[in-house]
Amino acid sequence: MNRAVVLLSGGLDSAVCAYKAARTNELLALTFDYGQRHRREVDAAKKLAGDLDVSDHIIHRLPLGLLGSSLLTDKPLPEGEPTSLPNTWIPQRNSIFLAIAFGYAEVTGADKVYIGVTASLYPDAQPAYIMAMERALNLASEKGGIQIVTPLEGMNKTQVVKKGLDLNVPFELTTSCYRGEELACGKCPPCVARIRAFRENGMEDPIPYE
Amino acid sequence: MNRAVVLLSGGLDSAVCAYKAARTNELLALTFDYGQRHRREVDAAKKLAGDLDVSDHIIHRLPLGLLGSSLLTDKPLPEGEPTSLPNTWIPQRNSIFLAIAFGYAEVTGADKVYIGVTASLYPDAQPAYIMAMERALNLASEKGGIQIVTPLEGMNKTQVVKKGLDLNVPFELTTSCYRGEELACGKCPPCVARIRAFRENGMEDPIPYE
Repeated sequence: MNRAVVLLSGGLDSAVCAYKAARTNELLALTFDYGQRHRREVDAAKKLAGDLDVSDHIIHRLPLGLLGSSLLTDKPLPEGEPTSLPNTWIPQRNSIFLAIAFGYAEVTGADKVYIGVTASLYPDAQPAYIMAMERALNLASEKGGIQIVTPLEGMNKTQVVKKGLDLNVPFELTTSCYRGEELACGKCPPCVARIRAFRENGMEDPIPYE
Repeated sequence: MNRAVVLLSGGLDSAVCAYKAARTNELLALTFDYGQRHRREVDAAKKLAGDLDVSDHIIHRLPLGLLGSSLLTDKPLPEGEPTSLPNTWIPQRNSIFLAIAFGYAEVTGADKVYIGVTASLYPDAQPAYIMAMERALNLASEKGGIQIVTPLEGMNKTQVVKKGLDLNVPFELTTSCYRGEELACGKCPPCVARIRAFRENGMEDPIPYE
């Protein structure tokens, strides 16, 4: 079985990505604790890693304060439908995550790095960027031949949930709400998107809402 | 005047790179504290940033323990001439540094990132890699057009020292010795390379040796 590093945030997308990766790989999970608003995401990642029975789970502390504040860390919270360009943008966040994941793949002998990018307006979620980054990071590596795998490429949230249902992803372990409390708010953009995605699959979202 | 981010380690190469960058740019210095063997490098970077009168100097704590031990952090120390492939290799270190520097350039409106790579056996110091990384990181960025500048490309240590002498770099503020004590050992590979580079320029290295 091949060995793969998977970027696991505790959110819905990276969970589906990880369960897809687990079908054909021994997994090493990598979670970044970069000053998110709450610990809930990291806790969700731990539960998912436990359920996935990964060979190792690294929680990597990575302060990113120098890259400015962001909705994910300390900006005021919005409500309602997701707007066009989200202010959850942290410049080069995926580049930093991918570079560290690649280095980790090199030292552990993994030959794939999985990342759960989907259809998105973020420039660092686009296929052309992912391909360019794969090329650059392989040039920097000693042996090369490491692949960045994006099983959710081009999918919207409804398609991601459908794929997760096919893979029996334990969605009840994932978290999406910006508030990060015991009960999800049901009103912030990721809550709204998630509730709709389950509904469009004819399901109720299994996490508890207030 | 343009604004540039410069990666400043406290060593000789990055110092020469920074003084070159300061000729034509307002500088923002970025130093990584990634578990180096000693604090001396970070202290040297602070002194250089002070002498350069940079607009801002970020010391960014970045634990890289997951990328394995290395001579730069906790492997046993060698003596003598530099050998072929140095075991100072930390996989994707430059990729991680460049990705963070690019993000920092984006939030501060800088349009250049300076890095002091020289002629080297490291894959992540090669021009093809730097070009590929510049392309990938610009694809991930919102406005693009950020340039990675490598003023020491292809230079050996003797040529770097020559360039630094032309630029009046205060070499006495830099540090290279693996041991990181008050007096440099004069025996480890970077000490040996540095002493020879000054000698080949007809100079004595201004830092104190034991």
